[in-house]
Amino acid sequence: MTFDTLENAAAGTQTPLAEVLEHIPFNSEGLIPAVAQDADSREVLMLAWMNREALARTLDEGYACYWSRSRQSLWRKGETSGHQQRLHELRLDCDGDAVLLLVKQTGPACHTNRPSCFYLLVDNDQVRVTSEPV
Amino acid sequence: MTFDTLENAAAGTQTPLAEVLEHIPFNSEGLIPAVAQDADSREVLMLAWMNREALARTLDEGYACYWSRSRQSLWRKGETSGHQQRLHELRLDCDGDAVLLLVKQTGPACHTNRPSCFYLLVDNDQVRVTSEPV
Repeated sequence: MTFDTLENAAAGTQTPLAEVLEHIPFNSEGLIPAVAQDADSREVLMLAWMNREALARTLDEGYACYWSRSRQSLWRKGETSGHQQRLHELRLDCDGDAVLLLVKQTGPACHTNRPSCFYLLVDNDQVRVTSEPV
Repeated sequence: MTFDTLENAAAGTQTPLAEVLEHIPFNSEGLIPAVAQDADSREVLMLAWMNREALARTLDEGYACYWSRSRQSLWRKGETSGHQQRLHELRLDCDGDAVLLLVKQTGPACHTNRPSCFYLLVDNDQVRVTSEPV
């Protein structure tokens, strides 16, 4: 199996997860970008990074686990803040080089205590802050 | 201005776009990940990459323009397929290292002719194809 072979597959086609995970093209740092989207509001909450272990733990434990590039360590989202992301659904894209998590978010997703990290809106020649810390 | 200084800013605070763009921490390849979300359905459509010029063109032209890592060239999404993404809204995240585009998508977003690139759903120990090419 390669991601190419799934491109023309009919809806409903299944492939063993273990085999798919073997083919994920982690980047030179061993990472893949992961987008977290609120399963209810459908708001995009954040973009973070996963290595092979973070992805495996997310699937095993049912809560989002990322790789912190600043701390160079596994980062169980909400471990200290309590702002966990319970996994509702995990998807891979056509090339297997991006992850989409649909999550049930507890509290704000952003470290600034805003609901989403994407609070900086480009409005013509200005950038506007669109939400307050909660 | 740095992204840090905007963390505690009240909603409505504005900063010149030119200054914000100067501080985007493009990676070692000069790229930043960009997530495209359908402005109407709120479906996450794809994750691609932008360099400084792709980001500037997206804002100038009002249609998503990415950097193709495989072709190593600017990629005006839909230039050949017609499956353009008209820009509805562009946001940056708290650290300025990810872009979120809300777009009006023409046709399927994925090169496989599926509506979204995220059609590979993890379901226990299997990965299932969840949509057909249209």
